[in-house]
Amino acid sequence: MVIHLNKSVGKEQAEELGRKYESICFNDGTRYVLVTTSKVKEADATLKAAAEATFVTDTDIQLAGKQYMNDTRSIDFGVVSIGGANNNTLVITGPCSVESEEQIEQASALCLELGVKVLRAGAYKPRTSPYTFQGLGLEGLKLLDKMRTKHGLKIITEVRDSTHVDEVIEYADIIQVGAKAMYDQGILRKCGKSNKPILIKRGFGSTLQEFVQSAEFVLSSGNPNVMLCERGIRTFETKTRFTLDLCGVAWLKQYTNLPVILDPSHAIGYAYGVADLSRACIAMGIDGLLIETHPNPKVAKSDAEQQLNFEQFRALYKSMGAVASAVGRKIV
Amino acid sequence: MVIHLNKSVGKEQAEELGRKYESICFNDGTRYVLVTTSKVKEADATLKAAAEATFVTDTDIQLAGKQYMNDTRSIDFGVVSIGGANNNTLVITGPCSVESEEQIEQASALCLELGVKVLRAGAYKPRTSPYTFQGLGLEGLKLLDKMRTKHGLKIITEVRDSTHVDEVIEYADIIQVGAKAMYDQGILRKCGKSNKPILIKRGFGSTLQEFVQSAEFVLSSGNPNVMLCERGIRTFETKTRFTLDLCGVAWLKQYTNLPVILDPSHAIGYAYGVADLSRACIAMGIDGLLIETHPNPKVAKSDAEQQLNFEQFRALYKSMGAVASAVGRKIV
Amino acid sequence: MVIHLNKSVGKEQAEELGRKYESICFNDGTRYVLVTTSKVKEADATLKAAAEATFVTDTDIQLAGKQYMNDTRSIDFGVVSIGGANNNTLVITGPCSVESEEQIEQASALCLELGVKVLRAGAYKPRTSPYTFQGLGLEGLKLLDKMRTKHGLKIITEVRDSTHVDEVIEYADIIQVGAKAMYDQGILRKCGKSNKPILIKRGFGSTLQEFVQSAEFVLSSGNPNVMLCERGIRTFETKTRFTLDLCGVAWLKQYTNLPVILDPSHAIGYAYGVADLSRACIAMGIDGLLIETHPNPKVAKSDAEQQLNFEQFRALYKSMGAVASAVGRKIV
Amino acid sequence: MVIHLNKSVGKEQAEELGRKYESICFNDGTRYVLVTTSKVKEADATLKAAAEATFVTDTDIQLAGKQYMNDTRSIDFGVVSIGGANNNTLVITGPCSVESEEQIEQASALCLELGVKVLRAGAYKPRTSPYTFQGLGLEGLKLLDKMRTKHGLKIITEVRDSTHVDEVIEYADIIQVGAKAMYDQGILRKCGKSNKPILIKRGFGSTLQEFVQSAEFVLSSGNPNVMLCERGIRTFETKTRFTLDLCGVAWLKQYTNLPVILDPSHAIGYAYGVADLSRACIAMGIDGLLIETHPNPKVAKSDAEQQLNFEQFRALYKSMGAVASAVGRKIV
Repeated sequence: MVIHLNKSVGKEQAEELGRKYESICFNDGTRYVLVTTSKVKEADATLKAAAEATFVTDTDIQLAGKQYMNDTRSIDFGVVSIGGANNNTLVITGPCSVESEEQIEQASALCLELGVKVLRAGAYKPRTSPYTFQGLGLEGLKLLDKMRTKHGLKIITEVRDSTHVDEVIEYADIIQVGAKAMYDQGILRKCGKSNKPILIKRGFGSTLQEFVQSAEFVLSSGNPNVMLCERGIRTFETKTRFTLDLCGVAWLKQYTNLPVILDPSHAIGYAYGVADLSRACIAMGIDGLLIETHPNPKVAKSDAEQQLNFEQFRALYKSMGAVASAVGRKIV
Repeated sequence: MVIHLNKSVGKEQAEELGRKYESICFNDGTRYVLVTTSKVKEADATLKAAAEATFVTDTDIQLAGKQYMNDTRSIDFGVVSIGGANNNTLVITGPCSVESEEQIEQASALCLELGVKVLRAGAYKPRTSPYTFQGLGLEGLKLLDKMRTKHGLKIITEVRDSTHVDEVIEYADIIQVGAKAMYDQGILRKCGKSNKPILIKRGFGSTLQEFVQSAEFVLSSGNPNVMLCERGIRTFETKTRFTLDLCGVAWLKQYTNLPVILDPSHAIGYAYGVADLSRACIAMGIDGLLIETHPNPKVAKSDAEQQLNFEQFRALYKSMGAVASAVGRKIV
Repeated sequence: MVIHLNKSVGKEQAEELGRKYESICFNDGTRYVLVTTSKVKEADATLKAAAEATFVTDTDIQLAGKQYMNDTRSIDFGVVSIGGANNNTLVITGPCSVESEEQIEQASALCLELGVKVLRAGAYKPRTSPYTFQGLGLEGLKLLDKMRTKHGLKIITEVRDSTHVDEVIEYADIIQVGAKAMYDQGILRKCGKSNKPILIKRGFGSTLQEFVQSAEFVLSSGNPNVMLCERGIRTFETKTRFTLDLCGVAWLKQYTNLPVILDPSHAIGYAYGVADLSRACIAMGIDGLLIETHPNPKVAKSDAEQQLNFEQFRALYKSMGAVASAVGRKIV
Repeated sequence: MVIHLNKSVGKEQAEELGRKYESICFNDGTRYVLVTTSKVKEADATLKAAAEATFVTDTDIQLAGKQYMNDTRSIDFGVVSIGGANNNTLVITGPCSVESEEQIEQASALCLELGVKVLRAGAYKPRTSPYTFQGLGLEGLKLLDKMRTKHGLKIITEVRDSTHVDEVIEYADIIQVGAKAMYDQGILRKCGKSNKPILIKRGFGSTLQEFVQSAEFVLSSGNPNVMLCERGIRTFETKTRFTLDLCGVAWLKQYTNLPVILDPSHAIGYAYGVADLSRACIAMGIDGLLIETHPNPKVAKSDAEQQLNFEQFRALYKSMGAVASAVGRKIV
């Protein structure tokens, strides 16, 4: 149960109630909020007296659920926003990894050419082998920061593990919690203490319930700016890298209040299908797309097969507007 | 290896060559064709002398592969066709099961109202329990036949097992090989002896390779009119009934010459997501859609949760044209 | 609900009650039995008057469930039996396919040498490609029949599809319904009209619920002699061919009354792990094992990688007794 | 390729070679070792001159592979060891979570009564919801430490995320990297700097290849004491919590040099199947078992359904010796 305490209830009293009802307590900017487990279905007299409103939920999808907030949350990136009353679909692009200043400058130039406002690239790569390229680390973050300052682009980059979460929170405009870090409470709670937008990628072996509950760790730490990113789940089919779960996206739209971003590049793992899948995602009415592009995919240090070259991306980008418009949305 | 024999090669000689090279032999209307296993990569002198053309393939995706035929096969339903040079996306609708004459008349009326040309409904239901509604059987087939005669609709219905394959081939305009019958060689080979269009549904535990190889059983029996239908695979995610595999659809479009039909109703298993998923499928550039509708889904004898009511379907149908048009296609 | 009608209730009255209560009706040798859907939880006055006993079940696992019959069913193969009060673990071996008389004679000789009583081999192979070895068909069945007559071995062989179900029922001592035919109601109902033991293999994409419900088709057609065979399910892991589901076996033992046979050869798909897995299965306390052996696996026409050679099988067989004995069972 | 440098090669030269050949460099106690990616298949003249031995591997399973070290690594826990030349199967038991001093004293008493040498219990619980019991944290670690001091038991406990990895490394005798932390390079590299035994649990969505590569992060950081723990993977089957992958265990035994520990409790998720599965695991010839027990499972704060009560565990423990002995192993 989510409990909005009366605005007159101060920090001390709120925390005391939190302890008493074994709840998480945070301030949402307007009032203190308590969240008990979803097994609590009714407020007792004490709680009722202190509460402005209560929201009973079926499962521990609480702050993220439609039963708590019916509209999709609005997330503001400064230059543009998604969710809420608008019907924007945000396009984000850039290479899998920052590889060099030259490469990230080329990626930035592509964004500027087309009007893409958010640049993606990884500095800390969650590689499964220790013997391959692991990303440029802090140096990569600084190159991204340079692109921001120089070109006015917004930056999204991934937290791989807790060792660099503070740096990423400091440098990025949007914090990406990687699929392999989705269950990491240390990272999630730190993201909850920031007020920057957080994009949580679904673990490829994670259920929708667990995925949304990861968002609950951030939301219940006080950061309301959470987006979910479906990027393919692992199934028995191996002709493609993963299986993009659009049925799951339909479920997320039906039952949660979180904006949904799609990553078709990681899902299929091959450039040939990215354009068709991207258009399919837009036609689903989703809030954003993450698409990997590289000035020369053949020499990419990671995910070479799935990155689009610039010509392919330009053609795709040009085709997006009509699809968005057909479903009452706008590419931003 | 697929071998087009010279047109001068007659039946007897073709079959002798077939035995010699451990090949399947059939007449494709123009000439005799041999298909060896894909392990054979080169024709010897005898074969070269008899062959007009040879096609080497990577795997046993042979007649269905782009290496054999680069364009998507054209399938003609009389009233309309898909594949080939046209960019049609065929919409098929109707209830999960034929339940009564009244119900199937209502379903037909919806088709006529909107201009939908193909009516779907099951007569033999592949239920997993023997203790539930099993379909009307032959009586159901006859009701479908009546709709065809009376209203000029084309009929698609499912073969569940070999006991009624002959009846279905006799009554239906399009033979649907059900997901649970996808590996049934008896059914597949019988379909190969017909020249009616065959729609093979992907088994929910079947790989793309196996799926296309099912089509090879039909194609190599002499029927070139095969379509594939993706209807969701079984994964660890249980919030939705199955997981629609659009990455797999991208792969099918890239590597095979078979038209691809999508069934979002069975994939998600719930009516709420069918409209969004249908539009996503259309934006993928696919050849057709199977959507379940029922005059009153609440009382449906099977799949009650996933069937759209007529109002929902009308709204969806109305929205399809714009999406199709945005990707250069046309709803038929 | 399963209803045991009074022994005085005759065929005509039983069938009339069956129609009235939308039930399946069959004679179990002692009395007529009705099975309604499991949604019916209570008998009305008419039914109570006609019933000797009623069994309410949670799901459509009815005749196969512990709520209906608490002990494991006893299956008698003539030479030996499993289930019931005994603690036998039956070992079945032989090649994937009958390839020639010489080969199947060698396989028979191995059985005779070690005292194995049941010989397995496929005549109709459910290959996923039409361009590979499809089995010897009826000729294969006749070779198996010859081994039975000549050596007194019991024979188990697979039904691939309905086209040859009658022949297999005629020739085999144990009818194996293949994993790809598990949902085939035509085959299952025919098996239900026989009284020979039926071994149903679990579809690699089938849930335990569906698996047991397949057995319900046979049981409710009047054949009580059904065994289940777990042979690996399809998961994301591809280093091994399938994933043997021993958790599922524990569930089957807990909730059903059907003997459970394990097939480690198909599960792992490689000979190296078959011995360890076989011993693990025995230690689970299961009723039987199907193990593929071949006089010369390297030249086998199907499943070459997973068949044990005779030396490997002899060593494995020798080690089985101690494991069985450690868990209070006996190898037969 | 793994390169054993000559013992005369010092730190500075080793590290310079490491940089030159883009390798990881560490000292294994005897000499400096370089590991390049597995794509490097041959040593050039410079490397040959500096190398004592080189080991070429197929994939980035390098230090963990049989091509590098053919025998199973020996792991010494002080009181007992596993792997190497001995045939010990180590039994570890205890509750899912430390809940109170009384509860963990009872768990310790059970170990002492039966001669179990290693006590398991979680202090930091990787719960998927923030609104449920999260573990006692540092207080829990201190209670475990108390049991060690007081009773001489060895302690294994889990690292959930990086925020407490230092504390766990300090307090535990065996560091358990939880399934949800399996990809966490920060944790893995820290474990690599310790010399305590590390038990890595397989992520439920992780391939065997990724699982073993996680071990490579620890091994290549200089800690040779790594064990793998299979605890069930996530599949479409939901009657049981996860699916224990014994085919995968056979693969690990065939291709890696790491001891393998099994956790049947988490795999099935229900107490009823734990005994049968435990005996199956022992019959596989594995190196150890983790089994959850609780003085009163019904009131357990986490995983209540899968923990054995003490009576059940005593009966299971008593039955283990005979199974181990049947496969030439010994319970320790």
